Amino acid sequence: MSVLVVGSVAFDSVKTPFGEVKDALGGSGTYFSVSASYFADVCLVAVVGEDFPDEHLNMLKSHKIDISGVEKRPGKTFRWKGYYEFDLNTAHTLDTQLNVFADFKPKLPENYRDCEYVFLANIDPELQALVLDQVKNPKLVACDTMNFWIEGKLDALKKTLERVDMLIINDGEARELANEPNIVKAARKIIDIGPKTLIIKRGEYGALMVDKDSIFSAPAYPLEFVFDPTGAGDTFAGGLMGYLSSNGTANEGVLRQGIIYGSTMASFNVEDFSLNRLRTLSRDEIDTRFRFFKKLTHFEDL
Amino acid sequence: MSVLVVGSVAFDSVKTPFGEVKDALGGSGTYFSVSASYFADVCLVAVVGEDFPDEHLNMLKSHKIDISGVEKRPGKTFRWKGYYEFDLNTAHTLDTQLNVFADFKPKLPENYRDCEYVFLANIDPELQALVLDQVKNPKLVACDTMNFWIEGKLDALKKTLERVDMLIINDGEARELANEPNIVKAARKIIDIGPKTLIIKRGEYGALMVDKDSIFSAPAYPLEFVFDPTGAGDTFAGGLMGYLSSNGTANEGVLRQGIIYGSTMASFNVEDFSLNRLRTLSRDEIDTRFRFFKKLTHFEDL
Repeated sequence: MSVLVVGSVAFDSVKTPFGEVKDALGGSGTYFSVSASYFADVCLVAVVGEDFPDEHLNMLKSHKIDISGVEKRPGKTFRWKGYYEFDLNTAHTLDTQLNVFADFKPKLPENYRDCEYVFLANIDPELQALVLDQVKNPKLVACDTMNFWIEGKLDALKKTLERVDMLIINDGEARELANEPNIVKAARKIIDIGPKTLIIKRGEYGALMVDKDSIFSAPAYPLEFVFDPTGAGDTFAGGLMGYLSSNGTANEGVLRQGIIYGSTMASFNVEDFSLNRLRTLSRDEIDTRFRFFKKLTHFEDL
Repeated sequence: MSVLVVGSVAFDSVKTPFGEVKDALGGSGTYFSVSASYFADVCLVAVVGEDFPDEHLNMLKSHKIDISGVEKRPGKTFRWKGYYEFDLNTAHTLDTQLNVFADFKPKLPENYRDCEYVFLANIDPELQALVLDQVKNPKLVACDTMNFWIEGKLDALKKTLERVDMLIINDGEARELANEPNIVKAARKIIDIGPKTLIIKRGEYGALMVDKDSIFSAPAYPLEFVFDPTGAGDTFAGGLMGYLSSNGTANEGVLRQGIIYGSTMASFNVEDFSLNRLRTLSRDEIDTRFRFFKKLTHFEDL
């Protein structure tokens, strides 16, 4: 089955304590797509400017990502510039140029509308809703969001959340959305808004999945070298959704494995700038790291 | 086998967003002892003042904790006063009165010297060394420390660390001790100082165990109500060391289970002020929560 993703394709200029890149390929849609492509067919909806090189589009195509939904428009591609301090946990934004992304109105090609797994990356919740209006009969819809929308478009966000099955956000965003410091209570409050499943990304501390009946806690891969955390969240979502789609189901067991695959993909992504590590993986490397997660968390029951 | 612990017995005045207590029973030695007592015989070395009521000593005795090493001296008992903000992750100290603890020179009763499992709670590293001079042939020595000693007595601390098998500290302390922001690299550097095993406490994110050959990641119990985190670290260490002692071995499998027991005990402790929750537990309740950890982390391997 195919995964549909709507998000940004961008140029990132990033500085970390270990180096820097200028105008490197980035964007939520890009990270998600390449990550998911190791598990399933991916259909990408995004917009780029005239300055976007074919080289990047060819890289996406080489991962069998359908880019017929990537619109090229007059103007420049979305640009983000930021840096990370030594702890690498917080991105500091220096400059955001929306460019062609400012007028982005996602329009799905006809063949995208049958996609059964849908991921709405972190964009305006009104645009997320617009995408849902265009898909026919999705099996599972997941979305991301951020403090900017929680603070600025809470009503629209809540309307979108009523229509999604799974919300994938970070720790701080979950507490802010629920206005509740305790993460388990925050999760219960968010589930009451609409999504059946909440997945909380906790950076170097892993991920937590909460639904009505159960909680699953996954660690992060213990990396000795983290170069650049940019895109880790979308890479996580890509691995998770790609795996769910490849299974054609999202029962509890598959969901848990999907979260481990998501964590696995994110752990590769932060080992280099841009998609340098992500785009050169093999399924074998991925599965080996998945198995490491099993050893990492194993203990004998009583 | 018996566990020996050297630490503080204190009166804590604590305020959290959910309430407050004044001069409630606390101290690293107290939390550790009661927690460990659910698994093993415990020998406590500490000092209290004349103001320390028999009621508290009787509570310790009722948990079959040997208190012949608890010295009562002229003066007042150690007092700590602090508060927690809404996120409950950081303790803010308002007042510390060392009182009789200022001249504490741990002296082990004869029958304590054969204890095979030893825990040196967070006290002056020179006093920790003094305790090690008095034990005969310990099977496993673990210790705790804090930024105060890392910054003020680093040489003495390193000398103590050369003599211990296991260091149990929190996230920030590990990074500070190793002068390294990456936690896995920090762990390797600390292991080079002496301890074979490093256990990193991460509060609501669980614990990480690192030794030369393997890494184990344990989550925290997802609590909806956290009242007071005071003593969680020592309660964790108590559950862990008590379990190791009851097994008479600390092989990899037992260590991993011990960390889960430690996490289990800590999760109970933070549900109420002082030792209110900790001292009324049953082994059944403890084992039920242990088993929950198994469900919390379970996923099928490939």
